[in-house]
Amino acid sequence: MKDKFYQYIQELQDSITSTLEAIDGEAKFQEDIWKRPEGGGGRTRVIENGAVFEKGGVNISGVHGELPDSMKTYFGVKDARFFACGLSLVLHPKNPMVPTVHANWRYFEMYDKDGNIVDQWFGGGQDLTPYYIFDEDAIHFHKVCKTACDKHDPEFYETYKEKCDNYFWNAHRNEARGIGGLFFDYCKATETMSMHNWYDFVTEVGNSFLESYVPIVEKRKDLDYTEAQRQWQEVRRGRYVEFNLIHDKGTLFGLKTNGRIESILMSLPPHVQWIYNFTPEQNSPEEKLINILKQPKSWV
Amino acid sequence: MKDKFYQYIQELQDSITSTLEAIDGEAKFQEDIWKRPEGGGGRTRVIENGAVFEKGGVNISGVHGELPDSMKTYFGVKDARFFACGLSLVLHPKNPMVPTVHANWRYFEMYDKDGNIVDQWFGGGQDLTPYYIFDEDAIHFHKVCKTACDKHDPEFYETYKEKCDNYFWNAHRNEARGIGGLFFDYCKATETMSMHNWYDFVTEVGNSFLESYVPIVEKRKDLDYTEAQRQWQEVRRGRYVEFNLIHDKGTLFGLKTNGRIESILMSLPPHVQWIYNFTPEQNSPEEKLINILKQPKSWV
Repeated sequence: MKDKFYQYIQELQDSITSTLEAIDGEAKFQEDIWKRPEGGGGRTRVIENGAVFEKGGVNISGVHGELPDSMKTYFGVKDARFFACGLSLVLHPKNPMVPTVHANWRYFEMYDKDGNIVDQWFGGGQDLTPYYIFDEDAIHFHKVCKTACDKHDPEFYETYKEKCDNYFWNAHRNEARGIGGLFFDYCKATETMSMHNWYDFVTEVGNSFLESYVPIVEKRKDLDYTEAQRQWQEVRRGRYVEFNLIHDKGTLFGLKTNGRIESILMSLPPHVQWIYNFTPEQNSPEEKLINILKQPKSWV
Repeated sequence: MKDKFYQYIQELQDSITSTLEAIDGEAKFQEDIWKRPEGGGGRTRVIENGAVFEKGGVNISGVHGELPDSMKTYFGVKDARFFACGLSLVLHPKNPMVPTVHANWRYFEMYDKDGNIVDQWFGGGQDLTPYYIFDEDAIHFHKVCKTACDKHDPEFYETYKEKCDNYFWNAHRNEARGIGGLFFDYCKATETMSMHNWYDFVTEVGNSFLESYVPIVEKRKDLDYTEAQRQWQEVRRGRYVEFNLIHDKGTLFGLKTNGRIESILMSLPPHVQWIYNFTPEQNSPEEKLINILKQPKSWV
């Protein structure tokens, strides 16, 4: 399973980066192959200063070895070796009318001292972080997520949409990071879902990513925007940084397992502002966004 | 003691903000008085878009009530009420030749259920975060710190300088946040130092702040700088954000005690950049800074 999934994310990385380069038209992804001293490594691909994408990364990694102490405590195990692989992407477009997107699909195996698999699961999801709300874009994104889910279980979309809203909650701001999408974790074999069924589900979601995001980019990338709208985007990017550094378990996992710092923190936006007590005007589009983030809603 | 120290930090806030306004010449501090629902409050003063200070805050607060659960676990106590007050300041100058400075002086009391003081201590310190190294500035800052310390104990400077280097260590980057200064905590009554002696020490350090920083600002604020040097400043500010959100116990304490978010996060710089894998040129002033941050040195 681990070889099959690693093969899958390699191909998915290729198809995503080539599609995004075609949309951008100017910038190309820069590739860095890296090795983790304790075992494994990855292939980081970063795009910067593009016509459409100001900064973005589409990274794969496969790491293995002794589970770090902090993770042993987290999982409540004593001696354990692990394998983890996944694709992580974050795209920060230049135009504030185009939302930032994040996605991650991953697979995890844990072994006893004889090398037998004692636990294995999939996880992942994708979520959208707009700076301005276009209802039809939000609906489109969630519809694609729902269609992918519905092919596998009629309850998946509602369940994973709610988990996504809960996970990407910027607790210290009492607001969501964005308008959500899907989040699933610890997807283990059950009577109704074998690991092969989970593989089919996760790859279905991964395959739907470009369809969920690209039409939104195409529709909004050439819209005009003002300096004030650009400032709003940079202030909101500050909230993205706060979530990733204070709350995101994925980022913390990367830091604790001695992951490659530049690959983990490629998720941070390029230009960011923190302005003291910045408050949008009443009844403005900026206030509309905040109201939606304070109270996550149903889009489909 | 708590009233005496709170009185002190009120007066210190006044003298620091009036001096900084005079140096800036353009911007004024904006004051916000806030109340904490569970008890206490603060007086936040923020300066933005000045001629010298791009963003800065000089805040005092005095909070009290039931110790939050997370802090009870941290201190290993069951039922406890607390009082905490302090002055916190961070100044982010516009000119990359002027260092960012941070300082904090604080006092803490813990009570049993009958309201008796069961524990009390002072803490604090001040530290400098330059973007370009001027040896004479670093030496000046540390000399003022040492002079204040030496009046109270010949070993304080070495001890608290080392604690400062340890505390402001950006572990995931394997480098210091800046070039240090002083850091002390849990300063409790001993045979040689009464709480009154500690009060005298902490206020001596607080009173030395303007002398440690203002001459550096005066000397560097009108130096020319290039766009590339400004970019370097914004990238380095990103490391400042990373430290404060990932590692800083002060920030986490504020978030966990339901402090006022905008007062806690006023420490974050105004304009910040994250560039993938940004590496300074060999033998450049930027590389000189990094080398010093990787291996904290003695300045006096």
